[in-house]
Amino acid sequence: ALAAPNLASAQPRIRWRMPGSFPKSLDTLYGTQERICRRVGEMTDGAFQILPFGPGEVMPALSVMDGVGSGTVECGYTSAYYYLGKDPALSIATCLPFGMSSRQLWSWLQEGGGRALLADVYRDQGVMAIPAGNTGAQMGGWFRREINTVGDLNGLKFRIAGHGGAVLQKLGVVAQQIPGPDLYPALERGVIDALEWVGPYDDEKLGFQRVARFYYAPGWWEYSPSIDLMIHPAAYEALPNHYKAILEAACTEAWHWMMARYDHLNPQALRRLVAQGTQLRVFSRDILSACYRAAQDLYAEIGSSNARFRRIHAEWDKYRVEEVQWFRLAEDTQANFLGLMAQQQQR
Amino acid sequence: ALAAPNLASAQPRIRWRMPGSFPKSLDTLYGTQERICRRVGEMTDGAFQILPFGPGEVMPALSVMDGVGSGTVECGYTSAYYYLGKDPALSIATCLPFGMSSRQLWSWLQEGGGRALLADVYRDQGVMAIPAGNTGAQMGGWFRREINTVGDLNGLKFRIAGHGGAVLQKLGVVAQQIPGPDLYPALERGVIDALEWVGPYDDEKLGFQRVARFYYAPGWWEYSPSIDLMIHPAAYEALPNHYKAILEAACTEAWHWMMARYDHLNPQALRRLVAQGTQLRVFSRDILSACYRAAQDLYAEIGSSNARFRRIHAEWDKYRVEEVQWFRLAEDTQANFLGLMAQQQQR
Repeated sequence: ALAAPNLASAQPRIRWRMPGSFPKSLDTLYGTQERICRRVGEMTDGAFQILPFGPGEVMPALSVMDGVGSGTVECGYTSAYYYLGKDPALSIATCLPFGMSSRQLWSWLQEGGGRALLADVYRDQGVMAIPAGNTGAQMGGWFRREINTVGDLNGLKFRIAGHGGAVLQKLGVVAQQIPGPDLYPALERGVIDALEWVGPYDDEKLGFQRVARFYYAPGWWEYSPSIDLMIHPAAYEALPNHYKAILEAACTEAWHWMMARYDHLNPQALRRLVAQGTQLRVFSRDILSACYRAAQDLYAEIGSSNARFRRIHAEWDKYRVEEVQWFRLAEDTQANFLGLMAQQQQR
Repeated sequence: ALAAPNLASAQPRIRWRMPGSFPKSLDTLYGTQERICRRVGEMTDGAFQILPFGPGEVMPALSVMDGVGSGTVECGYTSAYYYLGKDPALSIATCLPFGMSSRQLWSWLQEGGGRALLADVYRDQGVMAIPAGNTGAQMGGWFRREINTVGDLNGLKFRIAGHGGAVLQKLGVVAQQIPGPDLYPALERGVIDALEWVGPYDDEKLGFQRVARFYYAPGWWEYSPSIDLMIHPAAYEALPNHYKAILEAACTEAWHWMMARYDHLNPQALRRLVAQGTQLRVFSRDILSACYRAAQDLYAEIGSSNARFRRIHAEWDKYRVEEVQWFRLAEDTQANFLGLMAQQQQR
């Protein structure tokens, strides 16, 4: 039953700005940023308004964490691993090569103590963070020639950033960092031999299928990268408790809305790409094993000079292995059987 | 910046009751029901209060949909497939044997048109529904003897309900419906040879490991059953828009909180069960294939006399197959490789 308005819990008007790191052309990533703002408005009857901005409108794409930390803006939509140069532990919050699936990462962050472990890492950067997006498993990228052996990686000019690039360098890859808009011409002209971006839906928009024939899976360096809403702690503390609850809920919605968008759009895009002649390939077991070993070496190296990374990584890895063992039994047996049935139906 | 309270958007006081179908002893399922109520309260500063009730407190466990439909209560927490006797299409909303993974189902419901397709089905029962929970992949249950061949299913007295039971009956299983509290003594005394419940965490509480040795995977009849918040349409329409938005957000949180709880708790419980002597088994490819074919026969039979089931099932199945093909490439290749690595680490 409806009753008289409750004046005690009236809605204070609050206005925040939210710059982000993702181009407005990506309706998946930027679309999720917009959605958080819209949903917070809807849940507060318009009283708490957050304005989304694209890269360069308020600050550059990769200055978002700094802008939030300094209090220039109240919050920002970005991924912690962009800033791993400041602290390698930031990439544990996003994804590490050969990391967790989106569901495993969600479980670790929310129930397995992950957010508590990472709070320290964010605090050093002057921010707090709420997990607010995930792309799911990314693809391994576009290659102009096939990669059949570990030796084929040697000398490969591959656009790949972050810890994934560091792992591949151990196997002779020439890892390059090239901004999104310059990728297509670089691949077309052979400045690079290969590149990785996101997955079928986002990749198709940039047209890589026209300049490279082989599309590899899996993107083991970005199994399920997550995106954060970073918040300036003083701005957060000034919120009434029910706005804090609403912000948390909007971020949970955002994480799973982005998942659903990618899960919905990627299969359609993949079908279109294959129809245009894209050749799908899966990295061989040998290549994956060599990369996996190189990744473990990298984690040991970083940990040897960074005790906090070592400690959080150890917790993360223990959790990950237990999750994998359980998923193998109940989830993967079904996924693999149904995969086989789908393949037979297709024929 | 904080400003004066906004009287225009003050919070009307509303009080609802939410009976549910899940025993209070299950902190996963009943715990999620409680959580929705708590979160709606937190997001409205206490103005919108929903009181959770266990089975039998307001109405019996399996009368929840009827109670919501008749307007006896404003909402209820239950699963649509409990009511498949009224309409077999209700089980598409929860899960069908050999159905979708939790992420695939979430994508179909939220982005693939699933909720729109099912709205009709719910409307016939006098309710509307918001997806508000998912257990993830369940186990195949507890068996007193090994099931090695399709022939071993013949005559097996198995406690299994719903469409899963109907599929297994085609292979000679004697499907039985026995309420939760009676399961342990029935299995102990050999009244039944096997039973299925949920998964390691919930099953361990009921002690089945003490009366059956073999714990099978996967629970192909409940890959990822979802739980609904069913709502009486007139009660919903009486809500201010921002309360509708908050209710939707609380249900999204609930779905993924339940997932995270199960993903967090099941691996630990599985380890304890194995330490107590439980033997893990996976149904053979032959058994799964025979059951898969029997399931397709069942869907054809139901569809032959029920055009709406046939139409929704066809949409659902087309979506499912496309999802499976995409997941095989990007997600499953990683899951399977990491499963192999985890197995090697364990040795």
